[in-house]
Amino acid sequence: MIDINCDMGESFGIWKLADDEAIMEYCTTVNIACGFHASDPVTMRETVALARDQGVKAGAHPGLPDLWGFGRRTMAMDASDVDGLITYQVGALRGFLDAVDLPLHHVKPHGSLYGMTSRDPDLARAAAEVAARNDTALMGLADTHHEEAADQAGVAFIAEVFADLDYDDDGSLIISRTHGPLDLQVVARRVRQFVQDQTVTTVGGAELPVSFDTICFHSDTPGATDLAKTVWTTAQEAAA
Amino acid sequence: MIDINCDMGESFGIWKLADDEAIMEYCTTVNIACGFHASDPVTMRETVALARDQGVKAGAHPGLPDLWGFGRRTMAMDASDVDGLITYQVGALRGFLDAVDLPLHHVKPHGSLYGMTSRDPDLARAAAEVAARNDTALMGLADTHHEEAADQAGVAFIAEVFADLDYDDDGSLIISRTHGPLDLQVVARRVRQFVQDQTVTTVGGAELPVSFDTICFHSDTPGATDLAKTVWTTAQEAAA
Amino acid sequence: MIDINCDMGESFGIWKLADDEAIMEYCTTVNIACGFHASDPVTMRETVALARDQGVKAGAHPGLPDLWGFGRRTMAMDASDVDGLITYQVGALRGFLDAVDLPLHHVKPHGSLYGMTSRDPDLARAAAEVAARNDTALMGLADTHHEEAADQAGVAFIAEVFADLDYDDDGSLIISRTHGPLDLQVVARRVRQFVQDQTVTTVGGAELPVSFDTICFHSDTPGATDLAKTVWTTAQEAAA
Amino acid sequence: MIDINCDMGESFGIWKLADDEAIMEYCTTVNIACGFHASDPVTMRETVALARDQGVKAGAHPGLPDLWGFGRRTMAMDASDVDGLITYQVGALRGFLDAVDLPLHHVKPHGSLYGMTSRDPDLARAAAEVAARNDTALMGLADTHHEEAADQAGVAFIAEVFADLDYDDDGSLIISRTHGPLDLQVVARRVRQFVQDQTVTTVGGAELPVSFDTICFHSDTPGATDLAKTVWTTAQEAAA
Repeated sequence: MIDINCDMGESFGIWKLADDEAIMEYCTTVNIACGFHASDPVTMRETVALARDQGVKAGAHPGLPDLWGFGRRTMAMDASDVDGLITYQVGALRGFLDAVDLPLHHVKPHGSLYGMTSRDPDLARAAAEVAARNDTALMGLADTHHEEAADQAGVAFIAEVFADLDYDDDGSLIISRTHGPLDLQVVARRVRQFVQDQTVTTVGGAELPVSFDTICFHSDTPGATDLAKTVWTTAQEAAA
Repeated sequence: MIDINCDMGESFGIWKLADDEAIMEYCTTVNIACGFHASDPVTMRETVALARDQGVKAGAHPGLPDLWGFGRRTMAMDASDVDGLITYQVGALRGFLDAVDLPLHHVKPHGSLYGMTSRDPDLARAAAEVAARNDTALMGLADTHHEEAADQAGVAFIAEVFADLDYDDDGSLIISRTHGPLDLQVVARRVRQFVQDQTVTTVGGAELPVSFDTICFHSDTPGATDLAKTVWTTAQEAAA
Repeated sequence: MIDINCDMGESFGIWKLADDEAIMEYCTTVNIACGFHASDPVTMRETVALARDQGVKAGAHPGLPDLWGFGRRTMAMDASDVDGLITYQVGALRGFLDAVDLPLHHVKPHGSLYGMTSRDPDLARAAAEVAARNDTALMGLADTHHEEAADQAGVAFIAEVFADLDYDDDGSLIISRTHGPLDLQVVARRVRQFVQDQTVTTVGGAELPVSFDTICFHSDTPGATDLAKTVWTTAQEAAA
Repeated sequence: MIDINCDMGESFGIWKLADDEAIMEYCTTVNIACGFHASDPVTMRETVALARDQGVKAGAHPGLPDLWGFGRRTMAMDASDVDGLITYQVGALRGFLDAVDLPLHHVKPHGSLYGMTSRDPDLARAAAEVAARNDTALMGLADTHHEEAADQAGVAFIAEVFADLDYDDDGSLIISRTHGPLDLQVVARRVRQFVQDQTVTTVGGAELPVSFDTICFHSDTPGATDLAKTVWTTAQEAAA
């Protein structure tokens, strides 16, 4: 079975972001927002309860301290800041996981923190060391500082590819602040290619090798439930 | 030796509140701010390091989500909110404590959350149950819902009295949003009376019995280092 | 024509709350969130543009500094705090109104700040005086400190009634933190009764007189666009 | 008389940053924090009152939405964000200025927003256009996009030099997140050189021409009151 992961619990107070309950049925692993880019303590408790009820693996999804920008505006942070904000958010999530005896499955930085830690070895090391202190894996992008830092920190590395993001010709991801609607046929083709060929076709038409343990999609994409179903079904069929 | 506790780590970003390092020398127990009413991830890491270096017992001091008001403006919250915000903040602090192998010694609600939980049995229960899930004690006010909820949740209760607050004739504390300068002779007299007579003289001149395990003072009081020295010295001399 | 007002611009960053564009067609007056309980600078600019395009009257809707709680958790604030936060938020909104030459039509406190100012004469005075300094009206609840404070501050008072809230037997509103789905027939009946009889039937069955200049409904209610249409159509038909 | 400007009102809630009252005596112009990087509504009202009492010129000092980082961590923002957050904060400050009939003298971006707008023409234009809409001047760094954007927006440009920052060999400022203690003799020499020679000596020993209308120093520097006195006295004596 192909592992499928999705960001979860990204509502905030009165504001709902996605139909987490419906989407979680098409995931085996979830990344739970921890209150800095999205979520609040009550939403975190409810999301953890949902993860437990549906039997998915629950990871921490710490983000930048920027609710207005949903953690998608890069901030100039040093390793001390990044260590601090990941330690804080992972600890906070563990409070809710421990309350229902759910183990912490992994740490995956969110949004711009994901990009920042993939590009900067010091920030990557900070993230990996928090994972190590929590005896858990780091989820990230293969062949970046994510993977290197996980290796150095002695924690398992979970490589992911993205069903709903375009890849640039150098293998980097093309990320925007909000996600627009997607052509599900394009998504299905990309997922099938991930699973069957371990490659991705870039925006420039190049074919690059990809290595992955899990396929990610985003729940803040319009039509996320259909996207979830497409990713899940295509991946499992392609692997069959 | 009389246990002396003090709020710690209540700086926030560029803003410093107290000379934590100097004050901590006169404490045996500290209550570390967790980011909602004060502090930030970097300050929390530094405060935890200080607590470890000075060998004091480190508790969590979760507050209301109101940095502007320093958690001293009562908010209408239900037990779900209170469970959430204490679970979140205690978990966040444990992230930093775990990183340096320091155990969590207790949970003590801060500011208006302290008053809210002392007066409302549902909110007190929420606080005590978070303490129970973290296998730690609840610090609070004797003969209030703090004590009752700790008993019901099966956690140790640490009763405290206040060296730098006035007591009303009904035994309740007179709390203001900011703390003014204090007459250290009055403080010394109150501390001596706590220790030697287990009583307090109220603003109306009544003498009430008090029961306590620890004496608290506040580090945001002007002249806090002198206050700390006075409380510590007086208490230990009175107990000698 | 009966004036209909609705809260607007209560999205925040990535999180959308209501279909403001559709709902605004059924309003003559809008109350624009100012960033403390909801909204952000970009959302405010867009909401102001929408109000200008649709030709509705634009008021400021300042709230408590509590995004997580959507300004619906009462906070213990004094008149200085309330003066400060209303002055701040009204000024901020005026920055966007001035940019498109739209006048500020009124000030209406949001959520718990609405209730707090209606019950406390000092807080009501603070709100009315900010309205006075901005040469604008205060919108609020008749026969409460809202009306009294507006009179004392020498500003016009705009009395409102609520199409989507139940009235208690003492005339007070029954407000919850989130709004559930509504029976539109009940809403229509209430609106018709407001317009034709100037009365409201309370939850206990009593019939109380009401005095109003405008009818309010909330855009964070499920099915808000249908609600908007019902309130607008019923009110204008009843007045015809 | 040489104009001296200083950042003001950078306390936040319980946390005090500088002795604004003492420092303001050595300024002719102040830049008032607007709540995003520092300050709160009550502090803003008090700072405006102080500016009025001391007869200094009051400008808006809008910053990035990052209290923890004091607006000194660069954030990836586009012109829409920057227009929004400056419009919002300038409007908010005008609420307090209007209340005491004090005119808005200028807009000066704070911290990283200062650097961002000096380097990026789109962000500079956003800042200058907010100044234009408020019929006020833009204060900034000569020979950067600050000056160009002010010219294009048709607003007065107020060029400043910095008494307490080092200059790199390319004329750019060397800025750190916190300001350390200063050698007042170095400061005095730099100020004298600004006034008498219109030059600055860089860290590499080069002598660069500077053009300025006002000299800035920072109130969050340790010993800020002595710094203020040194800057003021040296500047006025050098100009005599």
